[in-house]
Amino acid sequence: MTDSKQVKPGVAASLTTLNVVVAGTGKVGAEFLRLLASQQQRFAGQIRLNLCAILNSRQALLSDTIESQAWSSAFSDAKPYQQANLVAYLAALPSPKVLIDITPSQDFARLYPAFIAAGCHLISANKQGVTLPGAEYQQILQALVRSGLRWLSNTTVGAGIPVQRVMQELLQSGDQIREVSGVFSGTLSWLLCQYDGTTAFSELVLQAQQLGYTEPDPRDDLSGKDVQRKLLVLARELGAELELADIELEPLLPAGLADGDLAGFWQQRQQLDLMLAEAYAKATAENKVLRYAASLCLVDGQVQAGVRLVAVDNKAPLAALAPCDNIFVITSDWYQQNPLVLKGPGAGLLVTAGGLHADLAELVKSVR
Amino acid sequence: MTDSKQVKPGVAASLTTLNVVVAGTGKVGAEFLRLLASQQQRFAGQIRLNLCAILNSRQALLSDTIESQAWSSAFSDAKPYQQANLVAYLAALPSPKVLIDITPSQDFARLYPAFIAAGCHLISANKQGVTLPGAEYQQILQALVRSGLRWLSNTTVGAGIPVQRVMQELLQSGDQIREVSGVFSGTLSWLLCQYDGTTAFSELVLQAQQLGYTEPDPRDDLSGKDVQRKLLVLARELGAELELADIELEPLLPAGLADGDLAGFWQQRQQLDLMLAEAYAKATAENKVLRYAASLCLVDGQVQAGVRLVAVDNKAPLAALAPCDNIFVITSDWYQQNPLVLKGPGAGLLVTAGGLHADLAELVKSVR
Repeated sequence: MTDSKQVKPGVAASLTTLNVVVAGTGKVGAEFLRLLASQQQRFAGQIRLNLCAILNSRQALLSDTIESQAWSSAFSDAKPYQQANLVAYLAALPSPKVLIDITPSQDFARLYPAFIAAGCHLISANKQGVTLPGAEYQQILQALVRSGLRWLSNTTVGAGIPVQRVMQELLQSGDQIREVSGVFSGTLSWLLCQYDGTTAFSELVLQAQQLGYTEPDPRDDLSGKDVQRKLLVLARELGAELELADIELEPLLPAGLADGDLAGFWQQRQQLDLMLAEAYAKATAENKVLRYAASLCLVDGQVQAGVRLVAVDNKAPLAALAPCDNIFVITSDWYQQNPLVLKGPGAGLLVTAGGLHADLAELVKSVR
Repeated sequence: MTDSKQVKPGVAASLTTLNVVVAGTGKVGAEFLRLLASQQQRFAGQIRLNLCAILNSRQALLSDTIESQAWSSAFSDAKPYQQANLVAYLAALPSPKVLIDITPSQDFARLYPAFIAAGCHLISANKQGVTLPGAEYQQILQALVRSGLRWLSNTTVGAGIPVQRVMQELLQSGDQIREVSGVFSGTLSWLLCQYDGTTAFSELVLQAQQLGYTEPDPRDDLSGKDVQRKLLVLARELGAELELADIELEPLLPAGLADGDLAGFWQQRQQLDLMLAEAYAKATAENKVLRYAASLCLVDGQVQAGVRLVAVDNKAPLAALAPCDNIFVITSDWYQQNPLVLKGPGAGLLVTAGGLHADLAELVKSVR
């Protein structure tokens, strides 16, 4: 049903204000702020979304009310960023308030306990917070429980694809999730969907780099570490007390190529090409396709988690992918024979900024 | 994040009670009630889920508190069902309260305005309410807005697959949905996934009937009317003011076979077999597969909706289906090149009863 059904009549006089703090002014942050103006209008009858701070690692604009359309020019007058100023400002803000972390910074994520102490709900696109060492992560969870605050992080895996929300929904409805597997990297998805053995794999890596699909050093993608991190997020979503190192990782790189400088890697790229050509030939002979897959099994309280190159049957759920797609395959008590599958672009400005607005809309439900 | 983060400390003293009324004691209703006991425990720290009425078209047990584990024996003592008694009982129940409609009855859905007047939130597995003639449907929506009540109906399409919830989330986040297409019938999905031209199509229909996958008269499935009804639900979710008759319908039946008695249909089954054999041969020659698909396009305020047998490319999203799967393909401003895809079993006791508990858990968020 559309949300019009939830609008309460005659509430204009007592409209709640949600104070919104945006950390991170990169591409996704800028897109989030661009979309904010129309969201302020959409929610105008239900809640006032008040943009009251914008910051990045260099500057902070801490101001009662910022026009979201004109944030960029206002931000050009921002003062230098100082952690203590930010925390004091947050503590003084009237509740409800939310800090939206669109930075890539682990240092910033380590301030979450301070933000919670200041009374802020949290929305994270930043994967660093949800993948902190277990003890720190648990401290954040406990602080949230004590203060009745929420932490939404649905864009940390799969951008706008609501995989965490769907998993939470199953758990809240009484289902038991047994297995989550999938392809969590749009870049590696693109590479393996394109690769058909006729072009050297490293040529595709170069193309992907030129298209802006890879990290500056493409080995950061090929290492699988980002996929490993995302699998940790989903494992913790399911309540598994896991650390990054508990997740087996087989990089999409021959052993010697992971280290050293980038130039050295390109010189040895033939090893990578050979590795892929062999795997491709073997897979095709068995009517299979190559995917860089993550999988997590929960059996009798035991967790098995790993990230690796696999050959999957042509008709398997992981096979039917468009380039750049992420896919999530959930098997549970209720979804045993036919799993529940979510698929779509796992990265991109619009879907990530949109996913952050989905988190904000979800928060609005509980604070208005 | 897990919901543990949302638990508020020290609220036991002021715990809200949500009064739960269950209408419909068929297979899904019984499964819903079986799962209720563990959900009452799950939410015990947050809200008291009080089962206080169970009814079907013959009997009604209207009782302050019913032990959900022992509902069946308690229900055997139920009095005859009388509409006026039910409405008076609902009106007298303390709020918040929810009526969960797991009946197949249009007459019962026509009582929704009375249930809303009595202060009930609604959860419907019954498709009749969300597909009433437009004027009646709009009256229900308006009554809900006036009274600040919610109507959740996520199991009416795709059972537990949260397609409506995901569409709402996109709309609430500021996205514009342009197209929704998919396979909405598990039965027709099974038939077309099994059919490979070697066995007559009508033989598969007989098999599906024996497996309990079809309606008693399989033409009720082959007519496509159930798919048409589900597409209407999704169209209205998007705000389109549509009636059933506005959705073009090409049944999976040759023209003469839709009417008359069932024995006559089986006598003429060769016509059906011929129709499918021809379509299959044509599709295979083009490297395509057959699917019975629904599609809805929204362009400049214009709506085009239809339900028909189509041949889709081997690599199209609709192709990659397991037997019984439903699939939903959403194209929007954000999901243009790669659509957002949801897939899974579109029917079944557990996934439907589970989906109703997902709706109940969603309602709990807003009333606790």
